[in-house]
Amino acid sequence: MTTGVRRRMGVEERRQQLIGVALDLFSARSPDEVSIDEIATAAGISRPLVYHYFPGKQSLYEAALRRAADDLAARFEEPCEGPLGARLLRVMRRYFDFVDEHGPGFSALMRGGPAVGSTTTNAMIDEVRQAGYEQILAHLDVDDPPVRLSLVVRSWVSLAESTALIWLDGRRIPRAELELQLVHDFAALCAVSAVYDDEMARIVAGMLADEPLEGPLGVLVSRLMAIAPAALSPMARVPRPRSG
Amino acid sequence: MTTGVRRRMGVEERRQQLIGVALDLFSARSPDEVSIDEIATAAGISRPLVYHYFPGKQSLYEAALRRAADDLAARFEEPCEGPLGARLLRVMRRYFDFVDEHGPGFSALMRGGPAVGSTTTNAMIDEVRQAGYEQILAHLDVDDPPVRLSLVVRSWVSLAESTALIWLDGRRIPRAELELQLVHDFAALCAVSAVYDDEMARIVAGMLADEPLEGPLGVLVSRLMAIAPAALSPMARVPRPRSG
Repeated sequence: MTTGVRRRMGVEERRQQLIGVALDLFSARSPDEVSIDEIATAAGISRPLVYHYFPGKQSLYEAALRRAADDLAARFEEPCEGPLGARLLRVMRRYFDFVDEHGPGFSALMRGGPAVGSTTTNAMIDEVRQAGYEQILAHLDVDDPPVRLSLVVRSWVSLAESTALIWLDGRRIPRAELELQLVHDFAALCAVSAVYDDEMARIVAGMLADEPLEGPLGVLVSRLMAIAPAALSPMARVPRPRSG
Repeated sequence: MTTGVRRRMGVEERRQQLIGVALDLFSARSPDEVSIDEIATAAGISRPLVYHYFPGKQSLYEAALRRAADDLAARFEEPCEGPLGARLLRVMRRYFDFVDEHGPGFSALMRGGPAVGSTTTNAMIDEVRQAGYEQILAHLDVDDPPVRLSLVVRSWVSLAESTALIWLDGRRIPRAELELQLVHDFAALCAVSAVYDDEMARIVAGMLADEPLEGPLGVLVSRLMAIAPAALSPMARVPRPRSG
């Protein structure tokens, strides 16, 4: 696509080519730094011809983001088969694949700013979050989620986002570790919610029912049980005051 | 301030009054919906006089946001005395006080959009996040945080944000419950991080060392221990496959 060889393309084919070229450029650097001239050069066409297909950089950016959003939403899809922990881990791997492929563009978009924050782009971000939310609920086999489950899933989707952004800033932790950690974080946030709510406790018990001991959630629980006594022993030393 | 009584004010006094009036309006409704006319009326001055002090709505919005950001950052400050869980809970209460007072403006700002997303406003948001991050680290008594601790604290700050935003959207869970839940979430995310990292395990053990059994973290641990057997028993039924 960047050979500069001109050949006749149909309107839709040319639009799709430009979107692909733009998405590559917007993914590799902050969209603020990508010019229409650069996109034209990469697509092997003239600057006026780019404007023939897209009225301005913002509309091309939004079309590229549309394609990226559809791509990301599709990566959340996972067959509802087998243990939940393993399913979530596969989704997290595909999520980090996406983040890895689109790093600088993903950071710029999620951190907001003049070139990337518009009503349209924010609506697309929310749409992807909603797709993630609905996919997780589908895996939990819950049609009408109680408000606390809804909160846990939505806030975990946001945790996955912030974890990915922090990872992109220096990549100082291996991504495979973070993929697993986010599955564990999900279980941990669910467990916290279950502490004060019987309905959540039942949902969490259901989540764990089919988990093998060697799966991601089984490993978390057994490791926590292994390190808990050492971590908790100081607590037991504190005398409990008695009331009355 | 909204009585309409005109009296002579110094330049700085008038600026501060306008910022206060604007902050009240921007807090109560989405900033998109607040006009300069409205701010002028609420301040009891003419529209041109508002422009005399602030060149446009964006500069007045940013000045109001500056005041709100300083206010929020100050609420993170908490003496480094007594058990950690109780300290975090007091910080979370003040955080939700702020969110409660500035609900619609907080939502509009954090969700981004044309009227609120600018380089300046995003920098202020990051500054408040950084203040929260540094405060938490100060309480953990860690000067040079390992990368995994840094990740846990930053991602928890973002979790507190998304939890507050979800709460504002309908207020369907009592805020006191969410304040406590966020303290528990912090402990849970730390525990997950400790599972794979010895340094984090030592930090978590240090965090728990001074926790009383009846404090927020002690209660979490004892409740988890109480519900764990029922939730985990199905897992134990799954036979573990043997390799070879």
